Amino acid sequence: MTIGPIAGSTKVYRDGVPFRRVHLTNGEHVDLYDTSGPYTDPNATIDLEAGLGRRPVVRDRGTQLQRARAGEITAEMAFIAQREGVAPELVRDEVARGRAVIPANHNHPEAEPMIIGKAFAVKVNANIGNSAVSSSIAEEVDKMVWATRWGADTIMDLSTGRDIHMTREWILRNSPVPVGTVPIYQALEKVNGDPVKLTWEVYRDTVIEQCEQGVDYMTVHAGVLLRHIPLTVDRVTGIVSRGGSIMAAWMLAHHTESFLYTNFDDLCDILARYDVTFSLGDGLRPGSIADANDAAQFAELATLGELTTVARTHGVQVMIEGPGHVPMHKIAENVRLQEELCDEAPFYTLGPLTTDIAPAYDHITSAIGAAMIAQAGTAMLCYVTPKEHLGLPNRKDVKDGVIAYKIAAHAADIAKGHPNAQARDDALSKARFEFRWEDQFNLSLDPDTARDFHDETLPAAPAKTAHFCSMCGPKFCSMRISHDVQEAMAQKSREFAEHGNRVYVPLVSSAPPSQGAG
Amino acid sequence: MTIGPIAGSTKVYRDGVPFRRVHLTNGEHVDLYDTSGPYTDPNATIDLEAGLGRRPVVRDRGTQLQRARAGEITAEMAFIAQREGVAPELVRDEVARGRAVIPANHNHPEAEPMIIGKAFAVKVNANIGNSAVSSSIAEEVDKMVWATRWGADTIMDLSTGRDIHMTREWILRNSPVPVGTVPIYQALEKVNGDPVKLTWEVYRDTVIEQCEQGVDYMTVHAGVLLRHIPLTVDRVTGIVSRGGSIMAAWMLAHHTESFLYTNFDDLCDILARYDVTFSLGDGLRPGSIADANDAAQFAELATLGELTTVARTHGVQVMIEGPGHVPMHKIAENVRLQEELCDEAPFYTLGPLTTDIAPAYDHITSAIGAAMIAQAGTAMLCYVTPKEHLGLPNRKDVKDGVIAYKIAAHAADIAKGHPNAQARDDALSKARFEFRWEDQFNLSLDPDTARDFHDETLPAAPAKTAHFCSMCGPKFCSMRISHDVQEAMAQKSREFAEHGNRVYVPLVSSAPPSQGAG
Repeated sequence: MTIGPIAGSTKVYRDGVPFRRVHLTNGEHVDLYDTSGPYTDPNATIDLEAGLGRRPVVRDRGTQLQRARAGEITAEMAFIAQREGVAPELVRDEVARGRAVIPANHNHPEAEPMIIGKAFAVKVNANIGNSAVSSSIAEEVDKMVWATRWGADTIMDLSTGRDIHMTREWILRNSPVPVGTVPIYQALEKVNGDPVKLTWEVYRDTVIEQCEQGVDYMTVHAGVLLRHIPLTVDRVTGIVSRGGSIMAAWMLAHHTESFLYTNFDDLCDILARYDVTFSLGDGLRPGSIADANDAAQFAELATLGELTTVARTHGVQVMIEGPGHVPMHKIAENVRLQEELCDEAPFYTLGPLTTDIAPAYDHITSAIGAAMIAQAGTAMLCYVTPKEHLGLPNRKDVKDGVIAYKIAAHAADIAKGHPNAQARDDALSKARFEFRWEDQFNLSLDPDTARDFHDETLPAAPAKTAHFCSMCGPKFCSMRISHDVQEAMAQKSREFAEHGNRVYVPLVSSAPPSQGAG
Repeated sequence: MTIGPIAGSTKVYRDGVPFRRVHLTNGEHVDLYDTSGPYTDPNATIDLEAGLGRRPVVRDRGTQLQRARAGEITAEMAFIAQREGVAPELVRDEVARGRAVIPANHNHPEAEPMIIGKAFAVKVNANIGNSAVSSSIAEEVDKMVWATRWGADTIMDLSTGRDIHMTREWILRNSPVPVGTVPIYQALEKVNGDPVKLTWEVYRDTVIEQCEQGVDYMTVHAGVLLRHIPLTVDRVTGIVSRGGSIMAAWMLAHHTESFLYTNFDDLCDILARYDVTFSLGDGLRPGSIADANDAAQFAELATLGELTTVARTHGVQVMIEGPGHVPMHKIAENVRLQEELCDEAPFYTLGPLTTDIAPAYDHITSAIGAAMIAQAGTAMLCYVTPKEHLGLPNRKDVKDGVIAYKIAAHAADIAKGHPNAQARDDALSKARFEFRWEDQFNLSLDPDTARDFHDETLPAAPAKTAHFCSMCGPKFCSMRISHDVQEAMAQKSREFAEHGNRVYVPLVSSAPPSQGAG
């Protein structure tokens, strides 16, 4: 398991809120939002058996939503305000309005509070979890620590294989970020994988079991209704959501409406007791460019809007899951409709992939869609790894997926003008222009790889302060020449001042090339 | 050097126009635009010494622009129409209008004709070339073949080190795609790397030398004027274009206007003789998010518009180069202004990078910007590799850069509704839904990597037809369940027909959950 500080940085706590402080060679420093928890703090003792330290939890005043409505600024809200660099009142008001959620199960005090909402930094979720054919508990815990090291804001445990309960327990007790699940996966295991044998009771007991463990948010595909299924029959890729296809199979077999829909009130009462957040799943999300924005997808979205109202009346926090596969010209419409139908509940999208033709590169096909949909208002992005459609992600895939999505989220933060989003870019670009190579590496999303790439061609230590790199070599370095230009300009401006800008007179009036015959 | 067919495909010629034909296991086939030339045709004999075969060239009727204006549909236009699946008249009319260019130096008959314009498929350029500190001729020729294998539509030879002329000769004689250069790099070598020693005569002779060799388009930084330089002084990253910084240094040293600007008419006469296309360089492009869309950048763009008019009066084809580093919310403005100021000359952009904080992942930060700017109307995208800002790209970096940009270009083609763009997506998604794994691999941008990733967890041959993968395992495969759902639906619909849809009656009227107190 990889622990210890990220290159060039140390962990600092400001009013108890952790930051990754990057120390620059010019004496300055930059503090960054840090999701890695104690694992990057050399002073913290890591004991997977004991789990992480726990923060105090108030259990008797309801959910963050209910307390925000009551005008309270909770300890979690104050922590989040520090982290995001915004006013605590903004945090409270956005939660009260239902435009932001704080996934914080009373039984998961190990996690550091964070917020998901369009007024705040765009967040990234990383999926982990074993399957029937691959992976172990130790691997999944390692992936969780690894994913949060590189910036995953939440983790979803999508385990479908052996030891689901135990895998989740290890992840929850050791995760510094909120953990989400899809309870129907474990419920299906309990009925030996036969969707037809599922019952509300089996599902309900599974949800309670996971609430007790401390799961912070749960994907519930309660928006897939029997009347929606015929809308999927002519699709190119049918139903690609596991939860959606499981519920469709159940409904057809029993000729009856989804037990998730008909028991939704009871489900709300359960989640409210623990302050578990709904992530209303899009069981009919498009699985291909051809199926994007179709009748099935938007019919379910309308139902999710109806359920959002129900959940909020129960005081339960809600976010809405989104596609999937969507071409660029159909992305904005997804956000517009989601905000309209779901009363601006935070949108949580998977990608979307902007083309189907690049398996093995879907972290890129989807980072394009993710950046665009986040700019349009999506609050959290579920990462896609290079293995999407091909296999279960390994350690490298998890990192590649997280980095690609941190890029998408940050690009959107800049485009949205989120406070301080661009400060990191400016600090890195200044370091680049001043040939402070080490600072350029350490301010980047992945200092290790940036340094390795540079050293492939110029490994020598002096190259770390050299005024060129292997791209152009010494003679051609535009930035070096640009420094000379700036110096020359300074010199000229002194001369111009003495001679009344004479040099400029002929230039301003310099004749343009003829536009005549040729 | 890697030659031979790409997995699962063969080279076919339709009316002499090459395509990559992908053969599917269901007996169907899909023909794809193919830039790889004879290197993927097992029947072609590759002899680097002799160079590729040459097509006949008409030298006495002027440039493609002049011939299009005269109403002629040239052999190149007819070839291109076949390739793009559009009418020859559209090709001719877009070229005549100046909204598209066909970079085809009379002295480069080895290249297959292609077009760059917003009405056609978005193109991708790959930069190669050695530098003073790295790489050899053989390496660069190999990179050229490698880049076109994965879909590079043009190649730019940016060599700045030893043997510039010889490297270019080997690339030109063996490249199946147009080749671009930045002549000032070689001109600078001729004056021992001292910008101050540059002269119009040295530059002109270098341009003629490269025109004679067969370079198809040339980057000329004639838009950087002395009066623009003061606008760059307060930038975070100054002047990051090599050509721009070289000309700025020259102008300041000589206190006089750019010799590229004052001799532009003569330059046009030279390029017109060979039908070499101008790629008017953006010497003042922003090198950081902070400098995007600033006064220096747009002042130069206005001058490029002026030069576009001049070039066209000389019958020379023109495209305009664009940024650089631009945040998402400032991308569209670049295209709008470029089309307005440069009379819709094809836009050819480098990325843009949408954030500065991810060195080692700039193929991704820029693929996001590239997809968006292409959707907005950019005709060709200059790739960025993971090594950007860090070092010279190796073979793997070149492939990663090309694939990332083929994704961006294709995503834009779909968003723009380019004819047949989505057909490949639909064919691949259909294969995915029908568990035709081999077809899914072979229809992808990189069949080798897609297959390798799948086989990491399920290497056995039967897995290639298995109705699941390692992501979910057999029990959880949504697509398999979705097939059952479709079968069940078909069964139901037969029953419904017999019993008047009784099953549906209770569902449509099924009571929603209470929206009452909670």
